Amino acid sequence: MQSTIRSSDLAHLAHVELLTPTPDESLRFFADVFGMTETGRHGESVYLRGWDDYEHHTLKLTASRIAGMGHFAYRASSPEALERRVRVIEASGFGERWTDGDLGHGRAYAFTTPDGHHMEIYYETEWYQPPPELKPALKNQAQRFPARGANVRRLDHMNLLTSDVAALRRFMEDVVGLRTTEMIVLDSRQEAGGWVTCNNKSYDLAFTLDHYGAMGRFHHVTYAVDSREDVLRAADIFLEAGVHIETGPHKHAIQQTFFLYVYEPGGNRVEVANAGARLVLAPDWQPIVWTEAERRKGQAWGLKTIESFHTHGTPPIDQYEGPRKK
Amino acid sequence: MQSTIRSSDLAHLAHVELLTPTPDESLRFFADVFGMTETGRHGESVYLRGWDDYEHHTLKLTASRIAGMGHFAYRASSPEALERRVRVIEASGFGERWTDGDLGHGRAYAFTTPDGHHMEIYYETEWYQPPPELKPALKNQAQRFPARGANVRRLDHMNLLTSDVAALRRFMEDVVGLRTTEMIVLDSRQEAGGWVTCNNKSYDLAFTLDHYGAMGRFHHVTYAVDSREDVLRAADIFLEAGVHIETGPHKHAIQQTFFLYVYEPGGNRVEVANAGARLVLAPDWQPIVWTEAERRKGQAWGLKTIESFHTHGTPPIDQYEGPRKK
Amino acid sequence: MQSTIRSSDLAHLAHVELLTPTPDESLRFFADVFGMTETGRHGESVYLRGWDDYEHHTLKLTASRIAGMGHFAYRASSPEALERRVRVIEASGFGERWTDGDLGHGRAYAFTTPDGHHMEIYYETEWYQPPPELKPALKNQAQRFPARGANVRRLDHMNLLTSDVAALRRFMEDVVGLRTTEMIVLDSRQEAGGWVTCNNKSYDLAFTLDHYGAMGRFHHVTYAVDSREDVLRAADIFLEAGVHIETGPHKHAIQQTFFLYVYEPGGNRVEVANAGARLVLAPDWQPIVWTEAERRKGQAWGLKTIESFHTHGTPPIDQYEGPRKK
Amino acid sequence: MQSTIRSSDLAHLAHVELLTPTPDESLRFFADVFGMTETGRHGESVYLRGWDDYEHHTLKLTASRIAGMGHFAYRASSPEALERRVRVIEASGFGERWTDGDLGHGRAYAFTTPDGHHMEIYYETEWYQPPPELKPALKNQAQRFPARGANVRRLDHMNLLTSDVAALRRFMEDVVGLRTTEMIVLDSRQEAGGWVTCNNKSYDLAFTLDHYGAMGRFHHVTYAVDSREDVLRAADIFLEAGVHIETGPHKHAIQQTFFLYVYEPGGNRVEVANAGARLVLAPDWQPIVWTEAERRKGQAWGLKTIESFHTHGTPPIDQYEGPRKK
Repeated sequence: MQSTIRSSDLAHLAHVELLTPTPDESLRFFADVFGMTETGRHGESVYLRGWDDYEHHTLKLTASRIAGMGHFAYRASSPEALERRVRVIEASGFGERWTDGDLGHGRAYAFTTPDGHHMEIYYETEWYQPPPELKPALKNQAQRFPARGANVRRLDHMNLLTSDVAALRRFMEDVVGLRTTEMIVLDSRQEAGGWVTCNNKSYDLAFTLDHYGAMGRFHHVTYAVDSREDVLRAADIFLEAGVHIETGPHKHAIQQTFFLYVYEPGGNRVEVANAGARLVLAPDWQPIVWTEAERRKGQAWGLKTIESFHTHGTPPIDQYEGPRKK
Repeated sequence: MQSTIRSSDLAHLAHVELLTPTPDESLRFFADVFGMTETGRHGESVYLRGWDDYEHHTLKLTASRIAGMGHFAYRASSPEALERRVRVIEASGFGERWTDGDLGHGRAYAFTTPDGHHMEIYYETEWYQPPPELKPALKNQAQRFPARGANVRRLDHMNLLTSDVAALRRFMEDVVGLRTTEMIVLDSRQEAGGWVTCNNKSYDLAFTLDHYGAMGRFHHVTYAVDSREDVLRAADIFLEAGVHIETGPHKHAIQQTFFLYVYEPGGNRVEVANAGARLVLAPDWQPIVWTEAERRKGQAWGLKTIESFHTHGTPPIDQYEGPRKK
Repeated sequence: MQSTIRSSDLAHLAHVELLTPTPDESLRFFADVFGMTETGRHGESVYLRGWDDYEHHTLKLTASRIAGMGHFAYRASSPEALERRVRVIEASGFGERWTDGDLGHGRAYAFTTPDGHHMEIYYETEWYQPPPELKPALKNQAQRFPARGANVRRLDHMNLLTSDVAALRRFMEDVVGLRTTEMIVLDSRQEAGGWVTCNNKSYDLAFTLDHYGAMGRFHHVTYAVDSREDVLRAADIFLEAGVHIETGPHKHAIQQTFFLYVYEPGGNRVEVANAGARLVLAPDWQPIVWTEAERRKGQAWGLKTIESFHTHGTPPIDQYEGPRKK
Repeated sequence: MQSTIRSSDLAHLAHVELLTPTPDESLRFFADVFGMTETGRHGESVYLRGWDDYEHHTLKLTASRIAGMGHFAYRASSPEALERRVRVIEASGFGERWTDGDLGHGRAYAFTTPDGHHMEIYYETEWYQPPPELKPALKNQAQRFPARGANVRRLDHMNLLTSDVAALRRFMEDVVGLRTTEMIVLDSRQEAGGWVTCNNKSYDLAFTLDHYGAMGRFHHVTYAVDSREDVLRAADIFLEAGVHIETGPHKHAIQQTFFLYVYEPGGNRVEVANAGARLVLAPDWQPIVWTEAERRKGQAWGLKTIESFHTHGTPPIDQYEGPRKK
């Protein structure tokens, strides 16, 4: 673990591709219930963004036989930072290839994590230009506030399942260049969870142990809203829309996120959380290490962690076809 | 104006020293009404911090004949960044000297802005260690939530008055190494306001034109609370405490801050604002330029800007003894 | 002023009819921006309700040459209470006639205030039955939460302009059977405003002096939302929709309502307010009397009352054709 | 169940007496953590109120060997209503006697429920007069906002455990004169819970089945705060103060209350809830009947009801010395 911040080559988590076996229902969920804006279609994919996301999209929804996460991407801090980071990744042996990019962004470098999750990094992007009916009243805002559904503001963070938390953490630190802000270390010294970031958000990526020992599975993606009140209201809206609420709203002890987890129609877990006031501004922030005893206390106000939170991922374990580490 | 972010040598706005002719009343205001925690006293100064401020103090309250701002400081990103930045400042001709530091932080480099405001930068700091009765329940938090007064969370930003906005903006960009996210440019092409930052907060420093042409005056310092509801509650609390509310709560068009301005007993303007969800994550964010016509619309929801917002600063103009640019 | 509560013959403010010269735009405003649900059309009128209103409608929107308020109605507490109250009204000389009722409610007794506002009272009503797509998840709720626009919850209160506040107050107390909870009395002893109620809401009807001396004009109608945060969000939504925001959000000193006033496209003033926690439960509540000096302090947190708040009403004064008392 | 509202002889729930084996700790909890104001002491009792409670006290805290509820009281709507209601109670056979009153209120009539809970009704009361340092800025408010702890606003409702829900409901309807707004009826036709009110609050008293068959036990008393955000903040404050959080914050399906249950140091369950926007204004509101299947869904957003919610009451069952009905 590094003890002082290094200037990050990456600027922020940029987008995630979700695979859904029910593309029409998933699209309706993200557009009408989450309140996102569709910005394009290509092949089997539909592209969407929250009202404060500045890029062309932060969510790529792709029809697929089985639910899961196709890939996720970070935007680099500059063209030079992109090249510099690619060299590190290539040297790690996990690099794959340059792609031509996608709707909304230029060429990207693809690689995998040690657990097999697909990642990309890129710099060239298309700033979102709202059509006249979506032009905001205030010019420092990406798009008009939709006033529809949960009104998710912007992509906040991703959570991965992994067969080896420590290996994935070291990869994220040493190869991807993120820094760890919080982590769980069991009494056995095994790491059970990690939270990492490339900027002042206290995390934009998390990963927790897959209880099935499966590799490369997806836990959830989170969109931020403006307040805890907005999260509570989202719960009302999910209830009315018949969306499965897994757990929440409640406050995590770790990172203090005010959370609400639901399953989108395709089966992927998605979260609405309070973008909140918590930032890590200190350059010498030391990772907070949570013990097994501390985790047994449940969430911040005592809610016990729901069992499915440790078992449900996508692809669902009964459709998972990869290797297992236990 | 730079078009892509450079890795900042500075990590964040660190503290501000307020001068007050009524030190006892000011202390009671910040401790009881603002809800801050006192962490030390030295000479004519008392040191305080918000419950989520990680350093020894973010506010130094110093008894003085006339109200005003003594100095303000940024913390550097690393020891190397500190040295690097000091070299740039020295080269600019605005450098002053190394100091031995203060309660809570190590040696600092002092300099002035072209307008005469006193600034410092430093790296070595003392992380706040709460006494037993202030130990938080969650170990990722600096201190127990006080549940007293407005419960301000952390230092958010500073606002300076200046006789020359453009000159101060260029100094902050080129010498201090901040980047501009929003600005006001009048029809005459004169700049009337600038908002700059060294991190993902959309600003941590602002400056606006001094209508009296005075130099080096102070406009306000802002502490963040967690929600717009907390700002509204703070208004109730200020009302009950007999604190002068200048304007707000309302939402600024610029930066979309949900604001509330009051005068502390010493006469300095202080603000409570929603720390909120707004971040600048894009590395190639282009400054938003507001025109005179746009500013005439008032604040976001139409509130007219109160006259005193353009005239009241500290030292008050009738006690100001420096030069004037008009 | 009565000093102890009498059992009220009236249960609650039930609906208001707004006259609009721009019926299509007004309908779009109430349906899409306010978030109300249309429940019927008849002749030149469209009927709407908030998601928690239990009756067929609380707003009747009627096309008209000039903006204004057609009539407003209270629902009686029982059939007997209705008859009892009608007898009092008839005895007062202000009674008019029994009507056959309207969409959604049975026969009603029509009368006028001394200032000429049209009122009705009735008992028989049609409880709203939501169609399948609007059925709520929780059976103790009238309708599914719309998740659209400002999501106004229910009709809250009405405000009338009057040429004679004291006369209207006495009429509301003695003839209509409401009780006064707050009032403004000028240094001249002239009453300038009154707030009355028939239930535990601290007011469901208010009236203030018409500065033009006109008779029977309308000031505003208010719909309640759940929280102050919802009022703030409504302000964002009005801003985006190009709706004229007259004043607010801010907190009234009188009644402590957290208010936001806008003009619907037809020109009528409408308010969104926090339904809030304030109730008058005491049976011997004594009216709060505000003096001229107290009113000069502005609203709760110091906002000066905007001039148009005293002059704008509907019909607009330049289209008003009735008598004037000064 | 009556189908139309009768004018209630009772105005509102007025106060509750809690018995505590740890009087000092309980007082510190209610004063410092709940944020209540002490208004008097007499014998083994301390009297407290929330900042918007208009009477001398709403909580009487009495030192006792075993935790529990001493008595609770309603204030009548008028002197005549008091006499009228007393006659009904006396006729029921559950009447006890007139008492001389207590600190803050005049003579009261004492009686018991069929389950043995002690109740009183009275009319004469002492309106709270704040000392200078607690005088509010707005004269329509009982007391200055304390800005301390959870800042509970006012007594909201009581919840009793009972060995016979149906019998208690009928008693509350027919003898006490409350009306039922919601209830739980099991598949066996046994009633398992009831919610009743004497005014526009959707309930001010509730009772649920005692799983031990004990008689006259106490479930909880609830104080209202202004917003859901205030309930969340209260959870933070309880966490910091080491108070046992039993369950919540979450939203009940029944009555839609946003709840948070904790145990005060003496062992009594107390709740902080959102005073909220929900009122029953309809005079012909029909009781909502919840089925066993509906209750199995848990709370509004799916939280399972915690086991202790059905078993913990005061006196604790292992200290309970009365009869059992099963």
